[in-house]
Amino acid sequence: MRWSDMDALRHINNVAFLRYLEDARVDWLYHRSPLERNTEEGVMVVHHDIDYRRQLNYRHQPIPVELWVSRIGGASFTVSAEIADTDEAGKRTVYARAKSVLATVDLNEGHPKRVSAELRHYLEQFAE
Amino acid sequence: MRWSDMDALRHINNVAFLRYLEDARVDWLYHRSPLERNTEEGVMVVHHDIDYRRQLNYRHQPIPVELWVSRIGGASFTVSAEIADTDEAGKRTVYARAKSVLATVDLNEGHPKRVSAELRHYLEQFAE
Amino acid sequence: MRWSDMDALRHINNVAFLRYLEDARVDWLYHRSPLERNTEEGVMVVHHDIDYRRQLNYRHQPIPVELWVSRIGGASFTVSAEIADTDEAGKRTVYARAKSVLATVDLNEGHPKRVSAELRHYLEQFAE
Amino acid sequence: MRWSDMDALRHINNVAFLRYLEDARVDWLYHRSPLERNTEEGVMVVHHDIDYRRQLNYRHQPIPVELWVSRIGGASFTVSAEIADTDEAGKRTVYARAKSVLATVDLNEGHPKRVSAELRHYLEQFAE
Repeated sequence: MRWSDMDALRHINNVAFLRYLEDARVDWLYHRSPLERNTEEGVMVVHHDIDYRRQLNYRHQPIPVELWVSRIGGASFTVSAEIADTDEAGKRTVYARAKSVLATVDLNEGHPKRVSAELRHYLEQFAE
Repeated sequence: MRWSDMDALRHINNVAFLRYLEDARVDWLYHRSPLERNTEEGVMVVHHDIDYRRQLNYRHQPIPVELWVSRIGGASFTVSAEIADTDEAGKRTVYARAKSVLATVDLNEGHPKRVSAELRHYLEQFAE
Repeated sequence: MRWSDMDALRHINNVAFLRYLEDARVDWLYHRSPLERNTEEGVMVVHHDIDYRRQLNYRHQPIPVELWVSRIGGASFTVSAEIADTDEAGKRTVYARAKSVLATVDLNEGHPKRVSAELRHYLEQFAE
Repeated sequence: MRWSDMDALRHINNVAFLRYLEDARVDWLYHRSPLERNTEEGVMVVHHDIDYRRQLNYRHQPIPVELWVSRIGGASFTVSAEIADTDEAGKRTVYARAKSVLATVDLNEGHPKRVSAELRHYLEQFAE
Protein backbone atom coordinates (compact mmCIF):
# COMPACT_ATOMS: atom_id res chain seq x y z
CA MET A 1 0.00 0.00 0.00
CA ARG A 2 1.03 3.55 -0.53
CA TRP A 3 0.02 6.45 1.60
CA SER A 4 -1.32 8.07 -1.57
CA ASP A 5 -3.76 5.18 -2.08
CA MET A 6 -5.93 6.83 0.53
CA ASP A 7 -8.42 9.29 -0.84
CA ALA A 8 -10.02 12.35 0.76
CA LEU A 9 -12.29 10.04 2.79
CA ARG A 10 -9.11 8.65 4.43
CA HIS A 11 -9.46 5.06 3.40
CA ILE A 12 -7.99 3.14 0.51
CA ASN A 13 -9.64 4.35 -2.69
CA ASN A 14 -11.61 1.81 -4.72
CA VAL A 15 -9.41 2.35 -7.79
CA ALA A 16 -6.26 1.56 -5.79
CA PHE A 17 -7.59 -1.99 -5.29
CA LEU A 18 -7.22 -2.51 -9.03
CA ARG A 19 -3.58 -1.46 -8.78
CA TYR A 20 -3.08 -4.12 -6.11
CA LEU A 21 -4.63 -6.68 -8.45
CA GLU A 22 -2.45 -5.47 -11.32
CA ASP A 23 0.73 -5.82 -9.33
CA ALA A 24 -0.17 -9.28 -8.04
CA ARG A 25 -1.08 -10.32 -11.61
CA VAL A 26 2.05 -8.88 -13.22
CA ASP A 27 4.25 -10.61 -10.67
CA TRP A 28 2.46 -13.93 -11.13
CA LEU A 29 2.22 -13.73 -14.94
CA TYR A 30 5.46 -12.07 -15.95
CA HIS A 31 7.93 -13.03 -13.27
CA ARG A 32 7.00 -16.63 -12.70
CA SER A 33 5.22 -17.89 -15.81
CA PRO A 34 6.18 -18.88 -19.36
CA LEU A 35 5.31 -15.31 -20.40
CA GLU A 36 8.51 -14.21 -18.69
CA ARG A 37 10.66 -15.69 -21.42
CA ASN A 38 8.17 -15.19 -24.20
CA THR A 39 8.35 -12.00 -26.18
CA GLU A 40 5.50 -12.97 -28.49
CA GLU A 41 2.64 -13.77 -26.16
CA GLY A 42 1.12 -11.14 -23.90
CA VAL A 43 -2.18 -10.51 -22.17
CA MET A 44 -4.64 -7.65 -22.18
CA VAL A 45 -7.38 -6.93 -19.64
CA VAL A 46 -10.80 -7.15 -21.31
CA HIS A 47 -13.03 -7.22 -18.24
CA HIS A 48 -12.99 -6.50 -14.50
CA ASP A 49 -15.69 -7.29 -12.01
CA ILE A 50 -15.00 -6.22 -8.46
CA ASP A 51 -17.04 -6.39 -5.30
CA TYR A 52 -15.99 -4.23 -2.38
CA ARG A 53 -16.86 -5.88 0.92
CA ARG A 54 -15.24 -3.74 3.54
CA GLN A 55 -13.33 -0.50 3.83
CA LEU A 56 -9.60 -0.95 3.91
CA ASN A 57 -7.49 1.39 6.01
CA TYR A 58 -3.95 2.42 5.18
CA ARG A 59 -1.28 0.56 7.09
CA HIS A 60 2.40 -0.09 6.77
CA GLN A 61 2.10 -3.89 6.33
CA PRO A 62 1.33 -5.20 2.83
CA ILE A 63 -2.17 -6.48 2.12
CA PRO A 64 -2.28 -10.04 0.76
CA VAL A 65 -3.81 -10.64 -2.67
CA GLU A 66 -4.72 -14.23 -3.48
CA LEU A 67 -5.08 -15.17 -7.15
CA TRP A 68 -6.38 -18.28 -8.86
CA VAL A 69 -7.48 -19.23 -12.35
CA SER A 70 -11.23 -19.77 -12.54
CA ARG A 71 -11.57 -20.31 -16.30
CA ILE A 72 -9.29 -21.11 -19.23
CA GLY A 73 -10.84 -20.49 -22.64
CA GLY A 74 -9.51 -20.59 -26.18
CA ALA A 75 -8.14 -17.08 -26.35
CA SER A 76 -8.71 -15.75 -22.85
CA PHE A 77 -8.78 -16.82 -19.22
CA THR A 78 -10.26 -15.53 -15.99
CA VAL A 79 -8.21 -14.69 -12.93
CA SER A 80 -10.14 -14.54 -9.66
CA ALA A 81 -8.73 -12.62 -6.74
CA GLU A 82 -9.39 -12.02 -3.10
CA ILE A 83 -7.92 -9.13 -1.16
CA ALA A 84 -8.10 -10.31 2.41
CA ASP A 85 -6.14 -10.80 5.57
CA THR A 86 -6.21 -12.95 8.64
CA ASP A 87 -5.62 -11.53 12.10
CA GLU A 88 -3.63 -13.14 14.90
CA ALA A 89 -6.71 -14.93 16.19
CA GLY A 90 -7.18 -16.53 12.75
CA LYS A 91 -10.16 -14.38 11.78
CA ARG A 92 -10.25 -13.71 8.04
CA THR A 93 -11.49 -10.36 6.69
CA VAL A 94 -12.27 -10.07 2.99
CA TYR A 95 -11.97 -6.54 1.61
CA ALA A 96 -12.71 -7.30 -2.03
CA ARG A 97 -13.36 -10.11 -4.47
CA ALA A 98 -12.68 -9.69 -8.17
CA LYS A 99 -12.64 -11.45 -11.50
CA SER A 100 -10.53 -10.22 -14.40
CA VAL A 101 -10.75 -11.59 -17.91
CA LEU A 102 -7.43 -11.51 -19.75
CA ALA A 103 -7.20 -12.03 -23.49
CA THR A 104 -4.01 -13.45 -24.96
CA VAL A 105 -2.46 -11.26 -27.63
CA ASP A 106 0.31 -11.57 -30.15
CA LEU A 107 2.69 -8.83 -29.03
CA ASN A 108 4.23 -8.38 -32.47
CA GLU A 109 0.99 -8.13 -34.39
CA GLY A 110 -1.09 -6.64 -31.59
CA HIS A 111 -4.08 -8.91 -32.25
CA PRO A 112 -5.77 -11.71 -30.29
CA LYS A 113 -4.26 -15.18 -30.37
CA ARG A 114 -5.01 -18.56 -28.81
CA VAL A 115 -3.66 -19.39 -25.35
CA SER A 116 -0.40 -21.28 -26.04
CA ALA A 117 0.05 -24.83 -24.73
CA GLU A 118 2.86 -23.64 -22.52
CA LEU A 119 0.78 -20.87 -20.91
CA ARG A 120 -2.22 -23.20 -20.54
CA HIS A 121 -0.06 -25.66 -18.66
CA TYR A 122 1.08 -22.90 -16.31
CA LEU A 123 -2.47 -21.63 -15.74
CA GLU A 124 -3.78 -25.12 -14.98
CA GLN A 125 -1.56 -25.29 -11.93
CA PHE A 126 -3.54 -22.41 -10.46
CA ALA A 127 -6.98 -23.66 -11.41
CA GLU A 128 -9.55 -23.58 -8.68
CA MET B 1 -6.41 12.23 -20.09
CA ARG B 2 -2.99 12.51 -18.63
CA TRP B 3 0.17 11.45 -20.33
CA SER B 4 0.85 9.25 -17.29
CA ASP B 5 -2.37 7.29 -17.94
CA MET B 6 -0.43 5.42 -20.59
CA ASP B 7 1.33 2.33 -19.38
CA ALA B 8 4.45 0.59 -20.66
CA LEU B 9 2.40 -0.81 -23.57
CA ARG B 10 1.82 2.81 -24.70
CA HIS B 11 -1.93 2.88 -24.49
CA ILE B 12 -4.27 4.06 -21.77
CA ASN B 13 -4.02 1.63 -18.87
CA ASN B 14 -7.19 -0.23 -17.88
CA VAL B 15 -7.10 1.20 -14.35
CA ALA B 16 -7.01 4.77 -15.68
CA PHE B 17 -10.47 4.18 -17.16
CA LEU B 18 -11.80 3.88 -13.61
CA ARG B 19 -10.28 7.27 -12.81
CA TYR B 20 -12.18 8.73 -15.77
CA LEU B 21 -15.38 7.20 -14.38
CA GLU B 22 -14.58 8.53 -10.91
CA ASP B 23 -14.08 12.05 -12.16
CA ALA B 24 -17.25 12.02 -14.25
CA ARG B 25 -19.18 10.63 -11.28
CA VAL B 26 -17.78 13.09 -8.74
CA ASP B 27 -18.60 15.99 -11.01
CA TRP B 28 -22.13 14.74 -11.63
CA LEU B 29 -22.84 13.72 -8.01
CA TYR B 30 -21.07 16.37 -6.00
CA HIS B 31 -21.08 19.45 -8.16
CA ARG B 32 -24.54 19.28 -9.62
CA SER B 33 -26.68 17.14 -7.32
CA PRO B 34 -28.35 17.54 -3.92
CA LEU B 35 -25.24 15.89 -2.44
CA GLU B 36 -23.38 19.11 -3.11
CA ARG B 37 -25.19 20.91 -0.30
CA ASN B 38 -25.68 17.87 1.87
CA THR B 39 -23.01 17.13 4.42
CA GLU B 40 -24.82 14.09 5.79
CA GLU B 41 -25.39 11.92 2.75
CA GLY B 42 -22.53 10.44 0.77
CA VAL B 43 -21.91 7.50 -1.51
CA MET B 44 -19.46 4.64 -1.50
CA VAL B 45 -18.51 2.37 -4.41
CA VAL B 46 -19.51 -1.20 -3.65
CA HIS B 47 -19.15 -2.75 -7.08
CA HIS B 48 -17.59 -2.10 -10.49
CA ASP B 49 -18.12 -4.08 -13.64
CA ILE B 50 -16.20 -2.89 -16.67
CA ASP B 51 -15.88 -4.20 -20.17
CA TYR B 52 -13.00 -2.98 -22.30
CA ARG B 53 -13.95 -2.91 -25.96
CA ARG B 54 -11.09 -1.17 -27.67
CA GLN B 55 -7.65 0.17 -26.86
CA LEU B 56 -7.62 3.87 -26.18
CA ASN B 57 -4.63 5.93 -27.24
CA TYR B 58 -3.39 9.01 -25.46
CA ARG B 59 -4.44 12.28 -27.03
CA HIS B 60 -4.69 15.87 -26.02
CA GLN B 61 -8.48 16.13 -26.40
CA PRO B 62 -10.64 14.93 -23.49
CA ILE B 63 -12.46 11.64 -23.85
CA PRO B 64 -16.23 11.86 -23.30
CA VAL B 65 -17.78 9.80 -20.50
CA GLU B 66 -21.54 9.36 -20.64
CA LEU B 67 -23.32 8.46 -17.40
CA TRP B 68 -26.88 7.39 -16.69
CA VAL B 69 -28.74 5.79 -13.81
CA SER B 70 -29.75 2.22 -14.58
CA ARG B 71 -31.18 1.24 -11.20
CA ILE B 72 -32.35 3.01 -8.04
CA GLY B 73 -32.71 0.72 -5.02
CA GLY B 74 -33.46 1.33 -1.37
CA ALA B 75 -29.95 2.03 -0.19
CA SER B 76 -27.93 1.93 -3.40
CA PHE B 77 -28.13 2.78 -7.07
CA THR B 78 -26.32 1.77 -10.25
CA VAL B 79 -24.57 4.20 -12.53
CA SER B 80 -23.91 2.96 -16.04
CA ALA B 81 -21.21 4.56 -18.13
CA GLU B 82 -19.89 4.57 -21.63
CA ILE B 83 -16.47 5.88 -22.57
CA ALA B 84 -16.82 6.60 -26.25
CA ASP B 85 -16.35 9.19 -28.91
CA THR B 86 -17.71 10.10 -32.26
CA ASP B 87 -15.48 11.11 -35.15
CA GLU B 88 -16.14 13.85 -37.69
CA ALA B 89 -17.97 11.43 -39.97
CA GLY B 90 -20.35 10.58 -37.12
CA LYS B 91 -18.86 7.15 -36.43
CA ARG B 92 -19.09 6.21 -32.77
CA THR B 93 -16.30 4.19 -31.10
CA VAL B 94 -16.97 2.65 -27.71
CA TYR B 95 -13.82 2.07 -25.63
CA ALA B 96 -15.48 0.77 -22.47
CA ARG B 97 -18.84 0.13 -20.84
CA ALA B 98 -19.18 -0.01 -17.08
CA LYS B 99 -21.66 -0.33 -14.25
CA SER B 100 -20.87 0.92 -10.77
CA VAL B 101 -23.03 0.26 -7.74
CA LEU B 102 -22.97 3.07 -5.22
CA ALA B 103 -24.30 2.63 -1.70
CA THR B 104 -25.62 5.67 0.14
CA VAL B 105 -23.93 6.28 3.47
CA ASP B 106 -24.49 8.51 6.46
CA LEU B 107 -21.29 10.57 6.46
CA ASN B 108 -21.47 11.31 10.18
CA GLU B 109 -22.05 7.76 11.32
CA GLY B 110 -20.24 6.05 8.46
CA HIS B 111 -22.92 3.40 7.99
CA PRO B 112 -25.38 2.64 5.16
CA LYS B 113 -28.58 4.65 4.90
CA ARG B 114 -31.57 4.79 2.57
CA VAL B 115 -31.41 6.93 -0.58
CA SER B 116 -32.99 10.26 0.45
CA ALA B 117 -36.06 11.54 -1.39
CA GLU B 118 -34.06 14.51 -2.62
CA LEU B 119 -31.28 12.35 -4.09
CA ARG B 120 -33.80 9.91 -5.58
CA HIS B 121 -35.48 12.79 -7.36
CA TYR B 122 -32.15 13.90 -8.81
CA LEU B 123 -31.21 10.36 -9.91
CA GLU B 124 -34.57 9.84 -11.62
CA GLN B 125 -33.76 12.61 -14.06
CA PHE B 126 -30.88 10.50 -15.34
CA ALA B 127 -32.74 7.21 -15.46
CA GLU B 128 -32.38 5.24 -18.64
CA MET C 1 -7.51 18.24 -11.42
CA ARG C 2 -8.78 14.86 -10.44
CA TRP C 3 -10.65 14.07 -7.30
CA SER C 4 -7.97 11.47 -6.58
CA ASP C 5 -5.29 14.20 -6.53
CA MET C 6 -6.45 14.98 -3.03
CA ASP C 7 -4.71 13.07 -0.31
CA ALA C 8 -5.89 12.05 3.15
CA LEU C 9 -5.38 15.65 4.33
CA ARG C 10 -8.06 16.68 1.80
CA HIS C 11 -6.00 19.01 -0.30
CA ILE C 12 -4.12 18.47 -3.52
CA ASN C 13 -1.11 16.28 -2.78
CA ASN C 14 2.34 17.75 -3.46
CA VAL C 15 3.18 14.97 -5.95
CA ALA C 16 0.05 15.72 -8.00
CA PHE C 17 1.52 19.17 -8.78
CA LEU C 18 4.28 17.41 -10.72
CA ARG C 19 1.64 15.64 -12.78
CA TYR C 20 0.14 19.04 -13.63
CA LEU C 21 3.58 20.20 -14.73
CA GLU C 22 4.09 17.03 -16.75
CA ASP C 23 0.82 17.44 -18.60
CA ALA C 24 1.44 21.11 -19.36
CA ARG C 25 4.95 20.26 -20.57
CA VAL C 26 3.88 17.30 -22.72
CA ASP C 27 1.20 19.39 -24.38
CA TRP C 28 3.60 22.26 -25.04
CA LEU C 29 6.54 20.09 -26.15
CA TYR C 30 4.89 17.28 -28.05
CA HIS C 31 1.72 18.75 -29.44
CA ARG C 32 2.92 22.14 -30.50
CA SER C 33 6.67 21.95 -31.01
CA PRO C 34 9.07 20.49 -33.60
CA LEU C 35 9.28 17.40 -31.35
CA GLU C 36 5.80 16.51 -32.51
CA ARG C 37 7.03 15.50 -35.94
CA ASN C 38 10.44 14.36 -34.84
CA THR C 39 10.85 10.73 -33.95
CA GLU C 40 14.55 11.07 -33.20
CA GLU C 41 14.72 13.83 -30.63
CA GLY C 42 13.13 13.48 -27.21
CA VAL C 43 13.58 14.93 -23.74
CA MET C 44 14.20 13.43 -20.33
CA VAL C 45 13.67 15.09 -16.95
CA VAL C 46 17.00 15.38 -15.11
CA HIS C 47 16.05 17.78 -12.35
CA HIS C 48 13.00 19.26 -10.60
CA ASP C 49 12.95 22.05 -8.09
CA ILE C 50 9.56 22.97 -6.71
CA ASP C 51 8.44 25.44 -4.10
CA TYR C 52 4.97 25.05 -2.63
CA ARG C 53 3.51 28.41 -1.65
CA ARG C 54 -0.06 27.69 -0.75
CA GLN C 55 -2.37 24.73 -0.29
CA LEU C 56 -4.50 24.01 -3.30
CA ASN C 57 -8.02 22.71 -2.84
CA TYR C 58 -9.80 20.39 -5.24
CA ARG C 59 -12.24 22.09 -7.55
CA HIS C 60 -13.97 21.32 -10.78
CA GLN C 61 -12.33 24.12 -12.81
CA PRO C 62 -8.85 23.45 -14.24
CA ILE C 63 -5.88 25.10 -12.59
CA PRO C 64 -3.70 27.17 -14.95
CA VAL C 65 -0.05 26.22 -15.39
CA GLU C 66 2.16 28.86 -16.98
CA LEU C 67 5.42 27.69 -18.58
CA TRP C 68 8.40 29.56 -19.95
CA VAL C 69 11.96 28.72 -20.94
CA SER C 70 14.47 30.15 -18.48
CA ARG C 71 17.66 28.62 -19.92
CA ILE C 72 18.75 26.96 -23.16
CA GLY C 73 22.03 25.07 -22.90
CA GLY C 74 23.95 22.81 -25.25
CA ALA C 75 22.21 19.56 -24.43
CA SER C 76 19.52 20.62 -21.98
CA PHE C 77 17.15 23.46 -21.16
CA THR C 78 15.21 24.66 -18.16
CA VAL C 79 11.45 25.07 -18.10
CA SER C 80 10.10 27.32 -15.38
CA ALA C 81 6.50 27.00 -14.28
CA GLU C 82 3.97 28.74 -12.13
CA ILE C 83 0.79 27.10 -10.93
CA ALA C 84 -1.43 30.05 -10.12
CA ASP C 85 -4.80 31.56 -10.70
CA THR C 86 -6.44 34.93 -10.70
CA ASP C 87 -9.79 35.54 -9.07
CA GLU C 88 -12.60 37.73 -10.40
CA ALA C 89 -11.21 40.76 -8.60
CA GLY C 90 -7.89 40.26 -10.42
CA LYS C 91 -6.03 38.96 -7.36
CA ARG C 92 -3.38 36.42 -8.30
CA THR C 93 -2.64 33.44 -6.03
CA VAL C 94 0.52 31.43 -6.65
CA TYR C 95 0.31 27.81 -5.44
CA ALA C 96 3.71 26.62 -6.65
CA ARG C 97 6.77 27.68 -8.61
CA ALA C 98 9.01 25.11 -10.24
CA LYS C 99 12.02 24.65 -12.48
CA SER C 100 12.58 21.48 -14.45
CA VAL C 101 15.76 20.69 -16.34
CA LEU C 102 15.16 18.62 -19.45
CA ALA C 103 18.00 16.90 -21.30
CA THR C 104 17.64 16.25 -25.01
CA VAL C 105 18.08 12.62 -25.97
CA ASP C 106 18.44 10.65 -29.14
CA LEU C 107 15.37 8.41 -29.02
CA ASN C 108 16.91 5.72 -31.19
CA GLU C 109 20.19 5.43 -29.34
CA GLY C 110 18.86 6.45 -25.92
CA HIS C 111 21.79 8.73 -25.17
CA PRO C 112 22.16 12.51 -24.71
CA LYS C 113 22.39 14.72 -27.78
CA ARG C 114 22.67 18.43 -28.48
CA VAL C 115 19.53 20.57 -28.69
CA SER C 116 18.69 20.68 -32.41
CA ALA C 117 18.50 24.03 -34.21
CA GLU C 118 14.81 23.47 -34.84
CA LEU C 119 14.01 22.82 -31.19
CA ARG C 120 16.21 25.75 -30.08
CA HIS C 121 14.27 28.04 -32.36
CA TYR C 122 10.98 26.83 -30.83
CA LEU C 123 12.26 27.23 -27.27
CA GLU C 124 13.52 30.76 -27.92
CA GLN C 125 9.97 31.89 -28.56
CA PHE C 126 9.16 31.05 -24.94
CA ALA C 127 12.29 32.54 -23.40
CA GLU C 128 11.75 34.75 -20.41
CA MET D 1 7.67 -0.39 -7.30
CA ARG D 2 4.47 -0.84 -9.18
CA TRP D 3 4.21 -1.90 -12.75
CA SER D 4 2.20 1.27 -13.36
CA ASP D 5 5.16 3.41 -12.26
CA MET D 6 6.56 2.84 -15.71
CA ASP D 7 5.56 5.38 -18.28
CA ALA D 8 5.21 5.09 -22.04
CA LEU D 9 9.02 5.21 -22.36
CA ARG D 10 9.11 1.95 -20.35
CA HIS D 11 11.15 3.14 -17.42
CA ILE D 12 10.13 4.40 -14.01
CA ASN D 13 8.54 7.81 -14.47
CA ASN D 14 10.21 10.77 -12.76
CA VAL D 15 7.08 11.56 -10.74
CA ALA D 16 6.95 8.03 -9.33
CA PHE D 17 10.29 8.72 -7.60
CA LEU D 18 8.49 11.29 -5.47
CA ARG D 19 5.98 8.64 -4.45
CA TYR D 20 8.88 6.45 -3.30
CA LEU D 21 10.20 9.36 -1.24
CA GLU D 22 6.72 9.99 0.18
CA ASP D 23 6.30 6.41 1.28
CA ALA D 24 9.75 6.23 2.87
CA ARG D 25 9.08 9.54 4.66
CA VAL D 26 5.61 8.59 5.88
CA ASP D 27 6.91 5.32 7.27
CA TRP D 28 9.83 7.03 9.01
CA LEU D 29 7.86 10.02 10.30
CA TYR D 30 4.50 8.53 11.19
CA HIS D 31 5.21 4.95 12.08
CA ARG D 32 8.41 5.32 14.04
CA SER D 33 8.57 8.89 15.32
CA PRO D 34 6.87 10.94 18.05
CA LEU D 35 4.42 12.11 15.35
CA GLU D 36 2.86 8.67 15.51
CA ARG D 37 1.30 9.35 18.90
CA ASN D 38 0.86 13.05 18.37
CA THR D 39 -2.40 14.23 16.91
CA GLU D 40 -1.45 17.90 17.11
CA GLU D 41 1.83 18.09 15.22
CA GLY D 42 2.06 17.30 11.54
CA VAL D 43 4.30 18.15 8.60
CA MET D 44 3.70 19.65 5.18
CA VAL D 45 6.00 19.54 2.14
CA VAL D 46 7.10 23.06 1.21
CA HIS D 47 9.94 22.26 -1.19
CA HIS D 48 11.38 19.41 -3.24
CA ASP D 49 14.65 19.39 -5.10
CA ILE D 50 15.43 16.23 -7.01
CA ASP D 51 18.27 15.23 -9.26
CA TYR D 52 17.78 12.24 -11.54
CA ARG D 53 21.08 10.47 -12.13
CA ARG D 54 20.15 7.31 -13.96
CA GLN D 55 17.13 5.65 -15.49
CA LEU D 56 15.48 3.14 -13.24
CA ASN D 57 13.88 0.05 -14.73
CA TYR D 58 10.87 -1.73 -13.30
CA ARG D 59 11.70 -4.84 -11.31
CA HIS D 60 10.00 -7.01 -8.76
CA GLN D 61 12.45 -6.29 -5.92
CA PRO D 62 11.91 -3.10 -3.90
CA ILE D 63 14.26 -0.18 -4.49
CA PRO D 64 15.98 1.08 -1.33
CA VAL D 65 15.42 4.70 -0.27
CA GLU D 66 17.87 6.09 2.27
CA LEU D 67 16.77 9.12 4.30
CA TRP D 68 18.65 11.41 6.66
CA VAL D 69 18.06 14.80 8.23
CA SER D 70 20.31 17.45 6.74
CA ARG D 71 18.91 20.50 8.54
CA ILE D 72 16.70 21.23 11.55
CA GLY D 73 15.33 24.77 11.67
CA GLY D 74 12.86 26.53 13.92
CA ALA D 75 9.69 25.57 12.09
CA SER D 76 10.93 23.27 9.36
CA PHE D 77 13.57 20.66 8.61
CA THR D 78 15.17 19.16 5.52
CA VAL D 79 15.11 15.48 4.70
CA SER D 80 17.75 14.31 2.23
CA ALA D 81 17.24 11.11 0.31
CA GLU D 82 19.10 8.80 -1.97
CA ILE D 83 17.39 6.23 -4.16
CA ALA D 84 20.13 3.74 -4.86
CA ASP D 85 21.05 0.12 -4.77
CA THR D 86 24.11 -2.05 -4.48
CA ASP D 87 24.66 -5.08 -6.67
CA GLU D 88 26.12 -8.41 -5.61
CA ALA D 89 29.63 -7.24 -6.43
CA GLY D 90 29.14 -4.31 -4.04
CA LYS D 91 28.80 -1.70 -6.79
CA ARG D 92 26.47 1.14 -5.79
CA THR D 93 24.20 2.79 -8.37
CA VAL D 94 22.51 6.07 -7.46
CA TYR D 95 19.27 6.73 -9.37
CA ALA D 96 18.26 9.97 -7.68
CA ARG D 97 19.21 12.35 -4.91
CA ALA D 98 16.63 14.65 -3.33
CA LYS D 99 16.06 17.19 -0.61
CA SER D 100 12.62 17.90 0.78
CA VAL D 101 11.81 20.73 3.14
CA LEU D 102 9.03 19.89 5.58
CA ALA D 103 7.31 22.57 7.65
CA THR D 104 5.80 21.61 10.98
CA VAL D 105 2.11 22.46 11.29
CA ASP D 106 -0.47 22.52 14.02
CA LEU D 107 -2.99 19.96 12.77
CA ASN D 108 -5.89 21.49 14.67
CA GLU D 109 -5.33 25.05 13.60
CA GLY D 110 -3.75 24.26 10.22
CA HIS D 111 -1.00 26.86 10.61
CA PRO D 112 2.80 26.67 10.99
CA LYS D 113 4.27 25.92 14.39
CA ARG D 114 7.74 25.43 15.86
CA VAL D 115 9.36 21.98 15.76
CA SER D 116 8.52 20.42 19.14
CA ALA D 117 11.33 19.33 21.48
CA GLU D 118 10.18 15.74 21.13
CA LEU D 119 10.29 15.79 17.32
CA ARG D 120 13.63 17.64 17.35
CA HIS D 121 15.10 14.93 19.53
CA TYR D 122 13.87 12.25 17.10
CA LEU D 123 15.22 14.11 14.05
CA GLU D 124 18.64 14.59 15.65
CA GLN D 125 19.16 10.85 15.67
CA PHE D 126 19.06 10.93 11.87
CA ALA D 127 21.23 13.99 11.40
CA GLU D 128 24.00 13.66 8.86
